[in-house]
Order: sequence, then structure tokens, then C-alpha cells
Amino acid sequence: DDALAEDLGPGDITTDSVVAPDAVAEGEIIAKAKGVVAGLPVAALCFRRLDLRVGFEQDVEDGDRVSKNRVLARVSGPAVSILKAERVALNFLQRLSGVATLTAKFADAVADHPVRILDTRKTTPGLRILEKYAVRAGGGANHRFGLSDGVLIKDNHLKFQHEGAAAAGREYADAVSEAIAAARAAAGHLQKIEIEADTLEQARQAARAGADAILLDNMDVEALAGAVRAVRRLNKKIFLEASGNVSLRTVGRIAATGVDGISIGALTHSAPALDISLDLRPA
Amino acid sequence: DDALAEDLGPGDITTDSVVAPDAVAEGEIIAKAKGVVAGLPVAALCFRRLDLRVGFEQDVEDGDRVSKNRVLARVSGPAVSILKAERVALNFLQRLSGVATLTAKFADAVADHPVRILDTRKTTPGLRILEKYAVRAGGGANHRFGLSDGVLIKDNHLKFQHEGAAAAGREYADAVSEAIAAARAAAGHLQKIEIEADTLEQARQAARAGADAILLDNMDVEALAGAVRAVRRLNKKIFLEASGNVSLRTVGRIAATGVDGISIGALTHSAPALDISLDLRPA
Amino acid sequence: DDALAEDLGPGDITTDSVVAPDAVAEGEIIAKAKGVVAGLPVAALCFRRLDLRVGFEQDVEDGDRVSKNRVLARVSGPAVSILKAERVALNFLQRLSGVATLTAKFADAVADHPVRILDTRKTTPGLRILEKYAVRAGGGANHRFGLSDGVLIKDNHLKFQHEGAAAAGREYADAVSEAIAAARAAAGHLQKIEIEADTLEQARQAARAGADAILLDNMDVEALAGAVRAVRRLNKKIFLEASGNVSLRTVGRIAATGVDGISIGALTHSAPALDISLDLRPA
Amino acid sequence: DDALAEDLGPGDITTDSVVAPDAVAEGEIIAKAKGVVAGLPVAALCFRRLDLRVGFEQDVEDGDRVSKNRVLARVSGPAVSILKAERVALNFLQRLSGVATLTAKFADAVADHPVRILDTRKTTPGLRILEKYAVRAGGGANHRFGLSDGVLIKDNHLKFQHEGAAAAGREYADAVSEAIAAARAAAGHLQKIEIEADTLEQARQAARAGADAILLDNMDVEALAGAVRAVRRLNKKIFLEASGNVSLRTVGRIAATGVDGISIGALTHSAPALDISLDLRPA
Amino acid sequence: DDALAEDLGPGDITTDSVVAPDAVAEGEIIAKAKGVVAGLPVAALCFRRLDLRVGFEQDVEDGDRVSKNRVLARVSGPAVSILKAERVALNFLQRLSGVATLTAKFADAVADHPVRILDTRKTTPGLRILEKYAVRAGGGANHRFGLSDGVLIKDNHLKFQHEGAAAAGREYADAVSEAIAAARAAAGHLQKIEIEADTLEQARQAARAGADAILLDNMDVEALAGAVRAVRRLNKKIFLEASGNVSLRTVGRIAATGVDGISIGALTHSAPALDISLDLRPA
Amino acid sequence: DDALAEDLGPGDITTDSVVAPDAVAEGEIIAKAKGVVAGLPVAALCFRRLDLRVGFEQDVEDGDRVSKNRVLARVSGPAVSILKAERVALNFLQRLSGVATLTAKFADAVADHPVRILDTRKTTPGLRILEKYAVRAGGGANHRFGLSDGVLIKDNHLKFQHEGAAAAGREYADAVSEAIAAARAAAGHLQKIEIEADTLEQARQAARAGADAILLDNMDVEALAGAVRAVRRLNKKIFLEASGNVSLRTVGRIAATGVDGISIGALTHSAPALDISLDLRPA
Repeated sequence: DDALAEDLGPGDITTDSVVAPDAVAEGEIIAKAKGVVAGLPVAALCFRRLDLRVGFEQDVEDGDRVSKNRVLARVSGPAVSILKAERVALNFLQRLSGVATLTAKFADAVADHPVRILDTRKTTPGLRILEKYAVRAGGGANHRFGLSDGVLIKDNHLKFQHEGAAAAGREYADAVSEAIAAARAAAGHLQKIEIEADTLEQARQAARAGADAILLDNMDVEALAGAVRAVRRLNKKIFLEASGNVSLRTVGRIAATGVDGISIGALTHSAPALDISLDLRPA
Repeated sequence: DDALAEDLGPGDITTDSVVAPDAVAEGEIIAKAKGVVAGLPVAALCFRRLDLRVGFEQDVEDGDRVSKNRVLARVSGPAVSILKAERVALNFLQRLSGVATLTAKFADAVADHPVRILDTRKTTPGLRILEKYAVRAGGGANHRFGLSDGVLIKDNHLKFQHEGAAAAGREYADAVSEAIAAARAAAGHLQKIEIEADTLEQARQAARAGADAILLDNMDVEALAGAVRAVRRLNKKIFLEASGNVSLRTVGRIAATGVDGISIGALTHSAPALDISLDLRPA
Repeated sequence: DDALAEDLGPGDITTDSVVAPDAVAEGEIIAKAKGVVAGLPVAALCFRRLDLRVGFEQDVEDGDRVSKNRVLARVSGPAVSILKAERVALNFLQRLSGVATLTAKFADAVADHPVRILDTRKTTPGLRILEKYAVRAGGGANHRFGLSDGVLIKDNHLKFQHEGAAAAGREYADAVSEAIAAARAAAGHLQKIEIEADTLEQARQAARAGADAILLDNMDVEALAGAVRAVRRLNKKIFLEASGNVSLRTVGRIAATGVDGISIGALTHSAPALDISLDLRPA
Repeated sequence: DDALAEDLGPGDITTDSVVAPDAVAEGEIIAKAKGVVAGLPVAALCFRRLDLRVGFEQDVEDGDRVSKNRVLARVSGPAVSILKAERVALNFLQRLSGVATLTAKFADAVADHPVRILDTRKTTPGLRILEKYAVRAGGGANHRFGLSDGVLIKDNHLKFQHEGAAAAGREYADAVSEAIAAARAAAGHLQKIEIEADTLEQARQAARAGADAILLDNMDVEALAGAVRAVRRLNKKIFLEASGNVSLRTVGRIAATGVDGISIGALTHSAPALDISLDLRPA
Repeated sequence: DDALAEDLGPGDITTDSVVAPDAVAEGEIIAKAKGVVAGLPVAALCFRRLDLRVGFEQDVEDGDRVSKNRVLARVSGPAVSILKAERVALNFLQRLSGVATLTAKFADAVADHPVRILDTRKTTPGLRILEKYAVRAGGGANHRFGLSDGVLIKDNHLKFQHEGAAAAGREYADAVSEAIAAARAAAGHLQKIEIEADTLEQARQAARAGADAILLDNMDVEALAGAVRAVRRLNKKIFLEASGNVSLRTVGRIAATGVDGISIGALTHSAPALDISLDLRPA
Repeated sequence: DDALAEDLGPGDITTDSVVAPDAVAEGEIIAKAKGVVAGLPVAALCFRRLDLRVGFEQDVEDGDRVSKNRVLARVSGPAVSILKAERVALNFLQRLSGVATLTAKFADAVADHPVRILDTRKTTPGLRILEKYAVRAGGGANHRFGLSDGVLIKDNHLKFQHEGAAAAGREYADAVSEAIAAARAAAGHLQKIEIEADTLEQARQAARAGADAILLDNMDVEALAGAVRAVRRLNKKIFLEASGNVSLRTVGRIAATGVDGISIGALTHSAPALDISLDLRPA
């Protein structure tokens, strides 16, 4: 609704003056490039919120891989309404399919490994739920939705712990133990505790401190592999997540280290739109 | 506000349990890559809507070109509040700076020509005003904000004109004349009329029909140059806009054809985020 | 929705206690005075947002001229719902028809001249889009919808130009040229630039400075005629708009000066409501 | 807030391009016609919601009678902000002062009688609370705010009473008694029951049925006087309200009949705006 | 809508992963304890706002007394949708039925007396209208909905009257007379004036001062009875309301004093939820 | 904001007419019964949203146990504003303190055992976040905030599993294994999986199927003790939660069975308000 209002404002002068009010149109939404589709129900909603008489039939499902020039859906109904909602519907569809397509590329690159491609909280303001849905459509998995549905203790949190400033000299191991205990007490009993580690030694200490999951951040592939081995020796059940410097070229080797998940901000913050257009004609 | 709520939900368990409520932090927002900054006032607002005690001092202005590792702003105040607002503030800043940076690359590529780099309506749903602001920060100019503040008659509109379906056989020239007259009657007296043309012949007919501006869509550079010359011979004042197949490699040659504006959907729909981070420490 | 909530609050005690819940009503919405109708779809929406079972059939269309006692629409359905929505529906209909009726009187008075009757931004807060729609229904045309969809440089803007205070001594001509250039650079390529002129000399300077339209404000009819002639001699295409001191008695003579548009704040800020009522009876 | 957004949209191109961002302005809000002022705090809010640095000092109070050219308030601060909020602030002030001025004319016309000038629910959608405030500023009193804060049984309600359709033949007196009893049972113990009567006989029956107040609707002055006398003989405490065909010419004679209140829809649905303008200059 | 969003957040992981998307369910909403039902239409709305295909058939009506294990309504439709809306629907139904049940207990306890059981403004923030509806369903009556639809002058208001601080020495009788006069002038002509009295003497003075209703606050039963008798001797028509220290044990004796209404904050602020559950099975 | 609007509506006639606009008040918020306080910052916000000049100083902190007649906070400022916000502020404070007080009673009753008192999703629509905060203030812990931040597979979910209807004959053990696997795949890696078990045998099967937590629902104390022992023998780390038939009399014995958490809907759906009042006087 907000997106339609943002585009329409007080009205579409061009369509209202040029297009016959009773003209009927039909057409296809077509992928102009190869990719993974996401957002067809959102596009349908854009058309139908503006005018319930617009027909929208999907030819593929969200999550389907499509080749160039594939018809994604067929639209029919009052030309005036279709022309007004077109841009907003395509904007959603292009962005979400862009996210799904990029996610699928990463997922393909690690297909030989039992590892999750994870998104982050680096999403477009206002579109988080939709973008995380697109990640799933592309074969990825969702990390936290927000700050309230999971505990992830980062480097910055440890710096500001209760005794933080005063006890600057103390060990990472102690800070980690205290932080995990504090988070465990505050968190719900259905929530696991994840903590960031930047070195093999920190990863080992996090494992000893009882973390349920460890975020291995910004390590190069060798360091990562070492950290994974070290933690696995201590505890096989800890979920290991890698992040930082992940690209399509590196993701395969990262997966090969044996981590359980790889989180990639670019899935949502830098996915280029998938080129999708609407071909329309009088019905 | 919506973006903060989207991220915070009912609360940040990690920060609230691990970080001392009275800890004070200070830090810098730093560009991790070269680019053009946009969105600092939005980032400031994110911090200050959450907690008025957070200090935010800009080191550069929106629109400034910055090198890698440049400090953009300094943040200080309650660690709890800064940690909670950090992700949303950075999400806005990264996206808007990404748009500004890509716009600046296009603007640089045409710096020798008197031509406007224009955005389109292919914006992120909900962020149009901010993204169009970022385009201006990057040295571009704004096309229409929405369907109500300008008239742009596209191919699809002509197909559905009042007599459209019936008179399929009639000439483009007639359709264009009628469409311009109808739009002129409906539009405000402060609005110009722009019309799409896909061939040199259509461009010439549009010029004869009295269009104030012509969108030359999806022509190759030679065809474009020919159309520009043909229209200029008829009327020097018509604003000529090129669109379609515009990339950083082609934009210079497109500008050299003498068009007045070049519109590029990728400015807003495919700009990668600029990498920006917050370095924080106890104050 | 807001208007219904404003009227209903927590409920209609009178109707709920006195009227049988299963009573069915039918009736007519009737113009109690001669005028031009506007707002029937809004009235229909008021009834149907409250209760989808209410039937609403228009007997005339928005923009139709109606005589006293003309039936505008027929309403039928649950008496309880019709009685609750009645006042809000009539409030919209009376106000919008009042605006359309007053506009039509002005339009009739200038019917012999090729001139637009224009509204202004002097609208009722919250109802601008509807009131501007009513102006069109009455045969008028819309000026700007708001500050973002057109450029109109007024006397007050010139006073505060960049060099404004310092260069108080400089000429109107210079100020106008600079202002037009600045606005042209900032405005979209589909927007024309209009500027206010209060004397014949200013009008001439505005024309020379390249204005697309000139607002001739508060001139008497003779001065206006002189200004129109002077500008036309310089440039035939400039849109000339008159405003100030426009009444039903003077509007004809103003139109005779050859201006292209006449803007009248009273269309929206002082139009008396058209008397319209709902005659209801058990079905 | 909504009204400012409605006017500003994505931004004020004219002011932003023409006016120096650091220009400081001062000026006066001036009544261009004689009247009663209402809405100064709302106008102040318009300026200050946009920019807290705008100073606004009232020279008169809401409810004051002012002569032509009287300064109502002084405004000072950033020129850019004042110019952007000016129109919305004046739109509120002109409308509310228009309502107050018309109310005051009616109140003056009945100044010799102990009678209330009452508004109705015929208000502008969205502005009811403000318009009813303006009625009080003009010396009038408020009738109901909406359907939930008072019981007024109209002719239409009686038609649809529980036995309504079936017992069409029964007497007004019975219908009235039943309706009052039903409303009394449903209404709060702090609410009085008012009922419409269209003839002397109906008024007498309403009084006998125990109404707390009677709305004498659409009677001519003689019939009204007779009804007032008849009711007073039965019960001196019943509040008698006259409505219908009330104009500045007739209101005095209506008041002389001894009614306690006269309700007038035109106070809010047809009050012309009071002409008020802002004179601005560089500070 | 807000309540559904509050519960669902970005989605129901459990249902979406475990339940088959095309599973169809049917079941009954059952009272697990004896009580009075309220809120069935609200529960229906919860299900149907989420999914229009959910069927909801009431077996009883709001206000009905039900025994333990009574079926209240039958639900059928997509299992996924029913499971998602279940908790919110039951939360509304349990709370509102809890209010209705407690109200009915008080109403039963005074069934032999012509007295109203009244609610107060001590309602759950956000749910006032629904809770007051539940009071009516339970056989109670509503006091004011808010501060704008009735006048109740409390002890605290008298303390801060215009001359308040200065004239601390003056009599309650004078303060009461002045307050009633001021309120009468400001209130609508359909509003009665109620005033609080804490002693027999104050009650007598309030009656003499012309109050329409008197709130006898926090008196013991004997004092209350005395005050009722004293006021009745002065004026039989004044509405007498008792409040304070009302419990199921005392309410009968309070009613026996002859008051017209008894207001009880606990109806809405301390009513325990009625135990209601949904039994669901595959259809 | 919504709660204030709900109470104030278009204005407080009583206060505005009776109380001097410049009167200054001071007073104390006092607990009229023993309990645990929660909601003081919310109450402060109510006063300060209405008028920033109202001073509010807490005398105790949320979570403090207070005796009867204890001063909780001191309020001072404009009498008019304090009187208008009083009821809403107290409504929040009474309800939230009621929740905290009831939670504390349960927490006290299990003080000898290492067990969490847990809330449920049976909260007041619209107030969930505040009520869950009050549970923490009372010494309890929060279960899920909504359907998206934790996985709890209930009996009803198992009934509608993918093969559900068809495979009615299959074993609980198989259904549980499949459900846990499906939920594990869909849930985030920071989320644990909890499943409902109604018998000792089901609990054992849930433990074998790899559940992270088991909800032992509606078992009597002996059965519960048996189930706890049986599960602990299989896996010591599984979180065991008891629910159903929990009262202040039984909660101690339930805790003694060794469960890790006890969830109690009554904490939020049936907590009586704590009696709290505001004593006010002229300053």
C-alpha cells in the first residue's frame, strides 16, 4: 500500500489522459535474464490492491530457476489499472528476484557441502521480511530477523561488558564466559547463544565457555579451517558460522573447511536487480 | 522509526544482557572503500530517535567524495543505544552511499558533455525519496518522483488510446498528436509533455506533434545520433532523453550524441552498497 | 475511514437503541438546490466501508449539472448502517459539490474565452486531492498539487535569494534571471518555471528572463490587459495567469484580457456547501 | 503533520532552489478583513513542527475580534522553513477564523436573548474537533461531537423502530415513548435524551413522553413560538432547540421565541474563509 | 490487526514447517468453565482477517450464560491459518468473557434491586471499547467512555478550582455551586453534571447546588443509606452512584440502600480470564 | 499515545471547565496494597507525553517489593495536565504491577528450586511487550514473544503434519521425529526446538527424537515426576517445561519434580490489578 501511494501520489496524469478508461489489456511478465524468481505473490498483490478486476496467473513459482525470456506470469484486465501498478509490481519483483538469484549462485557454489548460505541484518530498511523470504526462495537460510529473536554476542558487546572499561586487561576467555552466562540467563529457553571469535584461540575459548554457536569472523581460509578443526575436537555439536570476505570465488573453499553456515551481507545489500519486464497489448 | 522497529522488535537481548547499562562508547563511522557519501543525516536520525543523548558529528558532507578509510562521522554516547541503532543506521548509509557512488561514476564518465544523468522510477519500494536524494548527492538529476508530477507517454500508453484497439491500423504520427493534445489538456500548465520514440521516424513525428521532451528508448548509438540530429533540425528546444542499454562503457558515447539527459535504472535498482562500518570503543 | 471513526467514536447509541437491527431501508440522495455534483463515489465508499451490504446506485455522474430536487443516487440496505454513515457521506458530498458548483459558476462566466479556471493551494487541510478533483468536476483545471510538483517563484522567494539581503538595491530583472536559472537547474526536465510579476514592467522582465509562465498578481483589469499585450509582443507562448480580486462579477472582464488562466482561492476555501439530503423510508 | 506532508510531498523545489538556505526572515500574520480569530496555536504548530527554530508570537488570542489590517502574530526564523509551512498554517487559520467569524455574527444577532448558538455534525471530514473549537472561539456552543456522546432521536430513527414497518399506523406519541425508553436504558446515566419534533402536537407528545430536550425542526417562526409555549406549559426544564432555515436575518426572531438553543449547519459547512496573509521580509 | 501482527511477527516457523499447507481442520471453541460469553464476533474477525476461507459459526450469542464444556462456536478451514490466529482469537475471547462473567456475578447479586452495575475508566489501555462492550454483555451498563463524553467533578477538581489555592478556607458548598455552574456552561446541552461527595453533608450540598448526579464515594453502607435518604428528600430525580469497597459480598447491601448505580473498577481491571479452548482435528 | 487518545477523545470537559488553567499541583503515587511494582517509566511517559512540564520522580524502581501505603513516585506540575493523564498512567501501572505481583508470588513459592517461572502467549492484545516486561520485573522469565521467535510443536501441529490425515494410524514417535526434522530445517540455527508431550511415553519418544526442550502438558504431579526422571535418564540437557493446572498451591510440588521451567497463563491473563492511587494537592 505504501509503495503504491509513493508512486501514484494524487494520480497518474499520463494514463488518465491518454488511455481509454474502458481499454482492456493482457500481457506477460517476462524474465529478460536468467535467474531465480521471487516475489510473484507480492507483484500480484500490487495489481490487485489497486483493482480487484486485474487477473494475475503465475506461470512459475517463487524459487523456480528460469531462463531468459521465460514467461513468469500473465496479467489481464483494465489497462488503466495495470499501467498504474506496473512499476511498483516490477520494482518488488526485480529486487526480490535479484536477491534470490544471487543467493542461488552462492548456494550452487557450495552444493557439494552440507552448509547453509545465511543472510544477515544488512537488509534494505522496510523490506527485511521480504528480502529474507527471497533468500529462502534462492536456497539460502535465514539468520536472525532482528535483535530480539536470537543472541549473537559480537566483539563490540564484549568491549562494553559490565566490568568492561575497568577490566581492560582481563582475558577474552573470562569475558566470553561471563557474557554467555549473562545472555543465557536473560534469553528465552528456546534460544541458543552465538558468539563472535576472531582467532583460533578465541574460538577454542568460546567452545570451552559453552557457546551453542560460534561466528568465525574475517578469518582467511587456512585460519578458518584450523579453527573449525580445533572446535570440533572440543565439541562436535557447536554450530560454526563463517563471515567476512565471502565472494563467489571464495565461498566454495570456505564451505570445504567444514563450517555449518556462511553468512553473506551482499545477498541483501548488493544484489543487482533481475531484469524483468511487462509486455502488454490490447486484449 | 519503522526501520528501527523492524530491527529491534521487542528488544535486543544480546545488548541488554551483556552490555553494562551505563557504559559509554565513542567511535567512528568509516568508509571501507572509496566512494561518494550520502545519508549521514539519516544515520544521525537513527541514533538520535533511539536516544537523544547520542552525539553525532559529521566529518564530511553528503555528496563528498571520500577515499578508503576516511572517517565520515564520530559517534559518542550510551553504548547500549549506539549498539542497538548501529545496524539500521549503517544499512541506510551503505545503500544511499552506494547509489551516490554509482551515480558519480556515470556523472564522471560524461563530465565533458552538458548532459544530465537521470534516475528513474525503478527505486526500492518505500525508499524513493531517499534514493532520489542520493542520486542528487552523486551529481545526478531527478526524473519524475511519481506518476503525478510529470507526463511521460510511453509505447504502452499509445497502445491503449481511446480509439486504440479499433484503429490499430492508424499511424504513429496521429496517435502521438492525439496523445499529446489529451495530455496537454489534462496536465497542469506547469508540466511539460514527454513522449517515447523508438525510431528516428517516430522521434521526428513526436517533434512535429509538439512534444516538449522525447525519450529515445533502446536505440543503438548511431541511431540515437541520427535521431538527435533530425529532431534538432526541427526544433532546438526539445529536451532529448536517452534510455536503455546504458553502461559505464557506453554512457560517454551516448552523451556525445548531444542528448540532454540519460536515464539509468541501475542507479537505484542495482547499485551495490558502499562498505561502511562503525569502529567503537569504551570512552 | 478516519472520517467515519471521527463521527462514530465508540458507537451510535441512538441508532443502536432505537432502530431495529434487522430493519431494511431504502431512500434517495437528493439535491435541495441547483448545482454541480461531485463526490458520489466518495459517498458510496462511506456507506460501503461501514457495511458491504449497503447498495448505492448513482443516478447522475460527478460533473453533471442538476436541478433542485434531482435524485442523485439511491441507497438501500440495513437501516442501522445507513443511518450511521449518512452524516459523513453527506458531509463529503455537500462540500465537494459546493466546490464543483462554485467552479462551474466561474467557468460559465468565462465560457466565451479560451481560459482555464484554476484552483490554488488554499485547500482544506487533509482534503486537497478531493477538492482538486471537485474543481475538475466543475469544469476547472488544477494548479500545483503541492510544493513538489511545480515551480512558482513568488515575490517572497525573490526577497530571500542567495544575495538577497545584501543586494537589496539591485534590479528585479537581475533577481528574476538568477531565480529562473537556479530553479531551472534544480527542477526536473518536465517542469516549467512560473514567476510572479506585480507590474507591467516586471512582467516584461520576467518574459525576457525566459519564464515559461507568469503569474500576474493583484493587477486591476486595465493594468492586466496592458501586461498581457506587452508580454505577448515579446513571446506568444508564455502562459499568463491572473490572480487576486477575482469575483463572479470581474472574472469575465479578466478573461477578456487574453490571459490563459485565472486562479481563484475561493473555489476551495470559501465555497458554500451544496444542500443535499437523504430521504429514507422502510423498504 | 498530515497537512504538511500533503503540501510538501517530496520537497519544495522553488524554495530550495531560489532561497538562500541561511536567509532569516521576519514578518506578520495580518487579518485582511474584520473578523474573529481562531487557530493561532494550530498555525504556530505548523511552523514549529517543520522547524523548531521558527519563532511565533501571538499578538491577539483566539476568540478576539480584530479589525482589518490587525497584526495577529509575528513570525521569525529561517526563511526556508517559514516559506514551506506558510500555506498550511494560513489554510488552517483562514478556515477556523472563518468559522469563528460566522459564529460571532450569529451570536451577535441573538445577544439580547439567553440562547445558545449551536453547531452540528455537518463539519469538514477530518477537522471536526478544530471546527468545533472555532465555534466556541466565536461565541457558540457545541452540540454532539459524534454519534457516541449524546442521544438525538430523529424522524429517521422513529421510522425504523423495532416494530416500525409492521406498525406503520400507530401514533407518533407511542413511537416517541418507546424510543425514549429504549434510549434511556441504553444511554449512560450522564446523558440526556433529545428527540426531534416537526409539529406543535409532536412537541407536546415528546414533552409528555419525558424527553430531556426537543429539537424543533424546520418550523416557521410562528409555529415555533407556539410549540415553545406549549412545551413550557407542560415542563419548564426541557431544553428546546430550533433548527432549519436559520439565517442572519431570521435568527433574531427565532431567538425571541424563547428557545434555549439554535443549531446552524452553515457555521461549519459554509463559512467563507477569513482573508489572512503573511507579510514577510529579510530580518 | 495490531494484535495479530504482535503475535505473528515475521511468521510462524512451527506451523509453516510442521503443518501441511493444504491440511484442512475443523474444531470447536469450548468454554472450560461456566460463565458469560463475550467477544465471539471479535474472535471471528481474528480468524477471517488472516484468511477469508476460515469458517466461523457461532453456537451461542454474546451475553449468553454457558455451562462448562459448552460449545461456543465451530471453526473450519485451512489448518495453517486457524493455528496461526488461534491464540489471538482466544486471548480476546477469554478476556472479554472474563469481564462479562464477573459483571454478571455482580448483576446477579443485585437482581432484586433497580440498580445499574457500572464500569469505570479503569480499563486495559487500548481495549476500552471492547471491555465496555463486554460489561454490557454481562448485564452491566457503561459509565463514561472517556473524559469528553460526560462531566464528573471529583474531589481533585474542586481542589484546583480557579480560586482554589487562595480560597482554601471557603465552604464545599460554594466550591460545588461554582464548579457545577462552570461545567454546565461548558458542557453540551445533552450532558448531565455529576459530582463526587464523600459525606452526607456534601451530598446534601451537591443536591442543593443542582447536580444531576452524585457519586457517593467510599462511604460505608450505613453512611451511604443516610446520604441516599437525605438526597431523596431534597430531590427525587438525582441519579445516585456508589463506588468504593464494592465486592460480591457487599454489593447486595449497597444496592439495598436505594442507589441508582454502583460502579466497580474490578469489572475491567481485575476480572480473571474465562478458560476457553479450541479443540481441533483434521477435517 | 493511543491510550491517551482513547481516554481524552476531543477533550476533558470537566477539567477544562472546573480547574484553573494555571493551577499547579503536586502529589504522590501510592501503593494501596502490598506488591511488586512495574510500569513506572510507562506512567512517567503518560504524563510527559501530554505535557513536558510535568515532573515525575520515582521513589522505587520497577521490580521493587513495596508495602502498603508506600510512595512509588512524586508528580508535580500543571494540575490540568496531571488530572488528564492520571487515569491512563494509573491503568498501566496497576495492570503491570498486578502482573509483577502475581509473578512474584509464584517465584517465591518455588524459591528453593532452580526453576524458571515462565509466561505464555496468553497476554492482553496490544500489551504483550509490556506484560512480558512485568513478568521479568516480578522475577519470572519470558517464553516466546510470538510465533516467529521460537519453535514449539504442539499436539495440534502433529495432527496436521504433511501426511497427517492419511497416516492417522502411525506412531507418535514417527510424527515427532519428522516434525522435529522439518522444524530444524526451517528454523534459524539459533533456535531450539520444543515439543509437547502429554504422557511419559511421549516424553521419552520426544527425547529420543532429539528435541531440545519438551513441554509436559497437563500431567498430574506424579506423572510429571516420572516423565522428568525418564527423560533425564536419556538426556540430561533437555529443557523440561511443565504447564497446565498450575496454582500457587501446586507450583511448589511441580517445581520439586525437577522441571526447568513452569509456564503459567494466569500471570498475564488473570492477574488482578494492584491497587495504586494518586494523592494530589495544590502546590
